[in-house]
Amino acid sequence: MTSSMDESAQAWTPSDFEARLRAMGETRYHHRHPFHLLMNEGKLSQIQLQAWVLNRYYYQSSIPLKDAALIARCKDQKVRVEWLHRIIDHDGDDDREPGGIDRWLILGEALGLPRTLLLEEQGILPATRFAVDAYVRFVAQGTLLSAIASSLTELFSPQLIQTRVSAMLCHYDFLDEAALAYFSRRPLQAGRDSHFALAYVLEHARTPESQTDVLNALSFKCDVLWAQLDALYYAYVSPGFTPPGAFNP
Amino acid sequence: MTSSMDESAQAWTPSDFEARLRAMGETRYHHRHPFHLLMNEGKLSQIQLQAWVLNRYYYQSSIPLKDAALIARCKDQKVRVEWLHRIIDHDGDDDREPGGIDRWLILGEALGLPRTLLLEEQGILPATRFAVDAYVRFVAQGTLLSAIASSLTELFSPQLIQTRVSAMLCHYDFLDEAALAYFSRRPLQAGRDSHFALAYVLEHARTPESQTDVLNALSFKCDVLWAQLDALYYAYVSPGFTPPGAFNP
Repeated sequence: MTSSMDESAQAWTPSDFEARLRAMGETRYHHRHPFHLLMNEGKLSQIQLQAWVLNRYYYQSSIPLKDAALIARCKDQKVRVEWLHRIIDHDGDDDREPGGIDRWLILGEALGLPRTLLLEEQGILPATRFAVDAYVRFVAQGTLLSAIASSLTELFSPQLIQTRVSAMLCHYDFLDEAALAYFSRRPLQAGRDSHFALAYVLEHARTPESQTDVLNALSFKCDVLWAQLDALYYAYVSPGFTPPGAFNP
Repeated sequence: MTSSMDESAQAWTPSDFEARLRAMGETRYHHRHPFHLLMNEGKLSQIQLQAWVLNRYYYQSSIPLKDAALIARCKDQKVRVEWLHRIIDHDGDDDREPGGIDRWLILGEALGLPRTLLLEEQGILPATRFAVDAYVRFVAQGTLLSAIASSLTELFSPQLIQTRVSAMLCHYDFLDEAALAYFSRRPLQAGRDSHFALAYVLEHARTPESQTDVLNALSFKCDVLWAQLDALYYAYVSPGFTPPGAFNP
């Protein structure tokens, strides 16, 4: 009659648990969202792509804040040292090369969005802000395990990026390889990052409770990504009702 | 009759303001604390030095958390990029070399403190924890200007470190240059860091209110350092009443 007798209270083995996480990506990651499907079929207008890039900039530029928040609450020096390069990946390094945020600005310029428009964070959908801010807060305030687990969507991003880059080069003649420089770096970075995060999670989530926390964190993060595309679809595809103050060229 | 007519409400010029900040260091920085004076006169016992290193380890190991907290709340990418190397200075870089925290552990070992004792953060004085945690919170929750200003004690540290290293090599024969490796890096790092922080503060604090905030932040940080030495003096020098649970060999 104790809860440990209940099958649902058994911990999964690491390999079964990894399979669960990957299965969640299959069903909940935003590669399945209709907005991305339209994008990859070449069916978005330049304005719709602009709206995506503008809103997604808020996500991109919040990632270093999110990663610094994780480091700020992490007493494990090894994790901090491993996590730090994520900030450099996005913010760049003054001595060497631009980071992901600067590369995203290049994508915006290729689409006709002035750099200042993105930098000023004007016209972003409120739903974008709510979702992204919720993600940063989740990482700052939840457990370290959940914070690390919420990055596991990177397990699924290289595949999506590969599909996206091919589709963009094929369908949108205003985009070329230079415009898509952001994406050329991400698969390698995401592979390294998700490798570390997955190993950490498999090592530290060995109880039913902690495995549930990890699954909930990944599910939450999928929701954060999905909600951003829902809002874009609603405002710029169908029904196309743009909220007051949002980007509306 | 408006407050702008009041002389006290005039902003200082940048050079006058810098002089104020430096004057505050002269009177409030912990180079004047009796515990440091004893240290530099060769009058501390090995156990008293151990207590200092053990407690100061808690401060050292919290610095990356403090700096990550600053980055996590900083929307200015240039500041983030500049600030990041502080984390690397303390945490090290897995590919290259150990950071300040590891060098501090070396100092502890030279004094006969096992590395594990420091890593476990056992026996630290409660007052150390309260002061250091207050510093981290101040940086995470105050304004960015105050957070940056609170680092300005680094303006004064190279001088103190120079005095300390000479004194330690002269007075304590259980310490050699290898044991003091932590201090060999700090003056250069502190010089670079305080140069940036001072320039930022002089540029951004142009009103009486913001200049007061900066002075208060520096004063607060001096208190954080001073309070740690007060507690050490009380517990390990005079009257030598060690609180329950604190290091007491």
